Amino acid sequence: VAVAAQTLDVLLAPRSVAIIGASDEPTRISGRTQRYLRDAGYEGAVYPVNPNRGVVQGLPAFPSLRDLPEVPDVALVAVPAERAVEALEEAAELGVKGAIVFAAGFAEHGEGGTLLQRRVAEVVASTGMRVVGPNCLGVFSAHDRFFGTFAIALDGGLPEPGPVAIASQSGAYGSHLFTLAQRRGLGVGYLVTTGNEVDVDVAEAIGSLAVRDDVTVILGYAEGIRDGERFLEALAEAHRRRTPVVFLKAGRSEVGAQAVSSHTASLAGSDEVFDAVCEEYGVLRVTTTEEQLDVAYGCLRGIFPHGRRLGVVSLSGGMGVQICDAADRCGLEVPPLPDDVQAGLLKRFPYASFANPVDLTAQVVQDWDLLDAALEAVLACDRFDAVVVSLTTVPLGLQAAPRLQEALGAAAGRHPERLVALTCLAEPEGLRAFGEAGLLVFEDLDRAVATVAALARAAECLARDLPDRSTAGTQVSVSRGTEDEAKRLLAEAGVEVLPERTVHSEGEAVAAADAVGYPVVLKVVSPDVTHKTDVGGVVVGVEDADAVRRAYTAVHEGVHVAVPDARIDGVLVAPMAPDGVDVIIGSHCDATFGPVVAFGLGGVFVELLDDVSMALAPVDTDRAHRMIRSIRGFGILDGARGTPLCDLDALATAIVAVSRLAAANAASIRSIDVNPVRASPSGAVALDASVVPA
Amino acid sequence: VAVAAQTLDVLLAPRSVAIIGASDEPTRISGRTQRYLRDAGYEGAVYPVNPNRGVVQGLPAFPSLRDLPEVPDVALVAVPAERAVEALEEAAELGVKGAIVFAAGFAEHGEGGTLLQRRVAEVVASTGMRVVGPNCLGVFSAHDRFFGTFAIALDGGLPEPGPVAIASQSGAYGSHLFTLAQRRGLGVGYLVTTGNEVDVDVAEAIGSLAVRDDVTVILGYAEGIRDGERFLEALAEAHRRRTPVVFLKAGRSEVGAQAVSSHTASLAGSDEVFDAVCEEYGVLRVTTTEEQLDVAYGCLRGIFPHGRRLGVVSLSGGMGVQICDAADRCGLEVPPLPDDVQAGLLKRFPYASFANPVDLTAQVVQDWDLLDAALEAVLACDRFDAVVVSLTTVPLGLQAAPRLQEALGAAAGRHPERLVALTCLAEPEGLRAFGEAGLLVFEDLDRAVATVAALARAAECLARDLPDRSTAGTQVSVSRGTEDEAKRLLAEAGVEVLPERTVHSEGEAVAAADAVGYPVVLKVVSPDVTHKTDVGGVVVGVEDADAVRRAYTAVHEGVHVAVPDARIDGVLVAPMAPDGVDVIIGSHCDATFGPVVAFGLGGVFVELLDDVSMALAPVDTDRAHRMIRSIRGFGILDGARGTPLCDLDALATAIVAVSRLAAANAASIRSIDVNPVRASPSGAVALDASVVPA
Repeated sequence: VAVAAQTLDVLLAPRSVAIIGASDEPTRISGRTQRYLRDAGYEGAVYPVNPNRGVVQGLPAFPSLRDLPEVPDVALVAVPAERAVEALEEAAELGVKGAIVFAAGFAEHGEGGTLLQRRVAEVVASTGMRVVGPNCLGVFSAHDRFFGTFAIALDGGLPEPGPVAIASQSGAYGSHLFTLAQRRGLGVGYLVTTGNEVDVDVAEAIGSLAVRDDVTVILGYAEGIRDGERFLEALAEAHRRRTPVVFLKAGRSEVGAQAVSSHTASLAGSDEVFDAVCEEYGVLRVTTTEEQLDVAYGCLRGIFPHGRRLGVVSLSGGMGVQICDAADRCGLEVPPLPDDVQAGLLKRFPYASFANPVDLTAQVVQDWDLLDAALEAVLACDRFDAVVVSLTTVPLGLQAAPRLQEALGAAAGRHPERLVALTCLAEPEGLRAFGEAGLLVFEDLDRAVATVAALARAAECLARDLPDRSTAGTQVSVSRGTEDEAKRLLAEAGVEVLPERTVHSEGEAVAAADAVGYPVVLKVVSPDVTHKTDVGGVVVGVEDADAVRRAYTAVHEGVHVAVPDARIDGVLVAPMAPDGVDVIIGSHCDATFGPVVAFGLGGVFVELLDDVSMALAPVDTDRAHRMIRSIRGFGILDGARGTPLCDLDALATAIVAVSRLAAANAASIRSIDVNPVRASPSGAVALDASVVPA
Repeated sequence: VAVAAQTLDVLLAPRSVAIIGASDEPTRISGRTQRYLRDAGYEGAVYPVNPNRGVVQGLPAFPSLRDLPEVPDVALVAVPAERAVEALEEAAELGVKGAIVFAAGFAEHGEGGTLLQRRVAEVVASTGMRVVGPNCLGVFSAHDRFFGTFAIALDGGLPEPGPVAIASQSGAYGSHLFTLAQRRGLGVGYLVTTGNEVDVDVAEAIGSLAVRDDVTVILGYAEGIRDGERFLEALAEAHRRRTPVVFLKAGRSEVGAQAVSSHTASLAGSDEVFDAVCEEYGVLRVTTTEEQLDVAYGCLRGIFPHGRRLGVVSLSGGMGVQICDAADRCGLEVPPLPDDVQAGLLKRFPYASFANPVDLTAQVVQDWDLLDAALEAVLACDRFDAVVVSLTTVPLGLQAAPRLQEALGAAAGRHPERLVALTCLAEPEGLRAFGEAGLLVFEDLDRAVATVAALARAAECLARDLPDRSTAGTQVSVSRGTEDEAKRLLAEAGVEVLPERTVHSEGEAVAAADAVGYPVVLKVVSPDVTHKTDVGGVVVGVEDADAVRRAYTAVHEGVHVAVPDARIDGVLVAPMAPDGVDVIIGSHCDATFGPVVAFGLGGVFVELLDDVSMALAPVDTDRAHRMIRSIRGFGILDGARGTPLCDLDALATAIVAVSRLAAANAASIRSIDVNPVRASPSGAVALDASVVPA
């Protein structure tokens, strides 16, 4: 299903709307929407539907949908679950284009609810009427003055159009974000809450918000993704439009994931895979609400630094040190100012320190020229991609505030392309003045630095091309899933394997060993033996022909004793592997996003430390290299502490090959496990492998 | 130097004070202090010293200290560095008890400044006058109405006495914390900024604030610790008084540590060792200012949960999920409510979900009894140590707010011993009302959960006895630092070593091998060879007497070829070690805190992943066990994924023994490196070791 950019057009800007279950009481859930529409100055027709009243909140009411003078664009369904389903069926029959269903008591609530939800799904499938909800808080478009929601948060005032759009599965969270964003003056233009997502989901909401010119940043929230493909298409749309998506995905923890299913009846899905999606599509994934709003605020400024080098100017050495610590935590660098610039400044202001962090010391309040000179030097310096300025509590001083605003404003004005984040304590009007001068303003220094880091990450993601999902590998057929079959498939896909042969007699074994070169390894080939070593099915370091004959017999005997019924398809003869580091390359099918490729170091790294990187399959070479570099133990492949420098290109090639094999055969291959791959300075060779048929 | 609890008495509550360099201009640095003292109603005598004026801000001024009618308790020195030193010398001569020096330009500022600071240190050493600073923002005691500071932050209003005390090396940061704490209504009673710490340091400040009955929580900040011993004594004092210390230590990162030295001329010190100190003395170490204030706020509530089990009640399923995720991040558990309690509630309220998180759904606003029942069930349940309640944005609704306040207030009132943190958005007066009902109130749910987790950690730390530093080992003498000497010392200290012998001839070697049992290992003993394996100095798996003879010769030849001048003290003959996991136990002398013991898994774990736990030496068995369990790779010692269950008691014994050896011989042993220790189900044996003399 392609994301229709116009999906939400009718739902966000209907020309007419019926409110089914409209209440005369403007503070009740079922009365609030009508009040909001009136207060907002919504220009379309509003038809309250209520069989018990002639007039509702001043408007003529109608006993049923059929009695309206026209078929409304949208039906707002504010009655309980059972009656909501009936109303939807009626609306669809009449040709209503869209419906928004507030009621809970559907799939999130036991069997009865699931049955009701299935009826809604049938209406959608058979009529094409678009449905938001059920179990949602509704939608609004401040641009179109349409407020199809009963959110209590709007009691505090209906918003003017603004550049932020919110797409949230959870109504309460969407409402929470809206309230916080408004408080910070970010301006929310659209809110879409999708609840149980019987039809419209967060993906569709993001996709159709992303194409709107009046949306600058999208805040997303979900507990589970209904349709992985649709979600990826929506993210691709946002990426093409360079609209940042700042996403909070809940249900990361096991206990959180359990709670998800009883809330919106979703499945939380694999968090590692979701992380991979965010990495590949440039989604700014955040962990906390504070972070989500900070990053949104940063995105609205519209300056995305092209690198991770931070210039720091502080009135206090202590704050400078803390900014350095925060930068380090966020992966930003703090390189020094050029020597000649430092020397020039030191000549004029011998008491300050200009290394970076620039420490102006408390003296600056007696000599404001120092502030001007330092700001200009750091903002003009091409060694920095962004600048953080700390003014500590000094702007609280009544005399200092105007001079500080003048200095910062002038400096930012001279360098409008430079991202400058300011951290200080000031009165509200002082903070506002700094913001109007073009600075990002934070009271907390850690949040200032973290936001700069997020914007640098956004720049990296937005600059990167979207993954090309079309270059899949060739289709293959998998029969028994034995090691030799797995290796043949992998070799055909482009993974290096040892030149090994399957033999069926002592004589063949000796000939094979002569051909591949001593010393060799002999391994049993059997679909019934998983851990070959445990049953005596492997003999290593076989030095000559006699030893090959003995080993051939030993392998058979060992397996026969341990697994009497095992079918033996032959014995594999292979040369000994080169010295190196064992890594694992694997694939599996994620329930939401399909085939996924994984990479990690072997042994305890993957088993105890969970040190694995994942990506949607297929990946290209560039992404494979990023996977390799993103594991914590990467140093062991890269010559750290005397380990050999492994051939990373060969490793990347193997990852790409496995990912393509997995992607092209998602229907027939359940999983691939190449374990271990021996990485060495001379290549990356699969030593053992299994391919499990679907 | 013992921490004198009364250190700060005279400095925080002098009976009389001279202001050297007093200015008639109440907004200047040198005029502000006098204004603050007047506005605060300070009852002691204030003597402005200014040779150029007869009257300063309405008080008679004096040309010099000598001209005052009495010797003041404290001199506030508000003149530049050079003149400040002269003033201090004069004050000390006259018998002034304490001085507070604002001026910068001392050790943080080049050679000239270092010389000036040395003169201040001489005054302190020769007269015993106590000095705060230089390069500090001063001190205040709101309890005593003494404001010996020029902090601009006080322009916003002088504080009333409150339960929070701040001890900060950085004046700007102390002032920043003060401002934020006041805004949150935490109430700051004391502020001590110590700057360059020529005399009074953060340790002394903490020690003497901890013993005051009017201090409930101490917020600390430092970039480097001057005197480790004094710091530990101060923390011990705070621990004895059960006064939580919430500490932000800056200079954690490399770039931050570099910036430290040019700020307060401190050394940042090892961050891992500082972490160990916090762990052992129950310091609540925080990373950000927000966290520092959140934890302080939590401590003021005075309820420290006795475990990590969290009950969650939310009006929104989405918030419940997020609380679970946050709990997981902070190491809190979210166990289910008992089945019978769930069943009882479900009978009354079939539409809600009571597993934990309890999800009241949006329906609760139509049926407040549900909220009362759910709160009571969770607060009364002994499966939880603390409770987090999320009301989302609902308290913003004017009708809901009073009912919510009533419900929460009543529930908290019935369970005054239970820590309840509330997260919601509300108007300021609403938030205040919830706070007055005894709840911890946070707008951000992550901060609510993180604070609960910090308070649980505080409870663990405060309940634990302080480490007993007295049980050191025996003193030994180290001569050459060879492996056999190291092993002898370790064996005497209580570390298990293999029954190995140093031999000096082939014959002795064979006899030794016969005695310890085949197969054996032969290793060269030489003070000139560090990596024995690299030079052919080790032969393993030696099976019989002939092989022993060959190996004896091979070891000598190998070493002679590789290191021609190497002195060879003999050859070690040892049995082969049991199979197991290699770990490392080491010690070194930290520049600030003295001997430290470290533990980690061998190989890549310690080298690439920095997976090491540290503790001040000596440690007891309990602490050794906590060290073992705190490494990320602990599972590999504990039977995870089929690895053997190692003898953790034996491992702890070895750590204790090394730590005691290190502690008892801090003067003569620079470092100990037992690498590897082979941990196995049957014990923990040192296979190689070195002891480096100081």
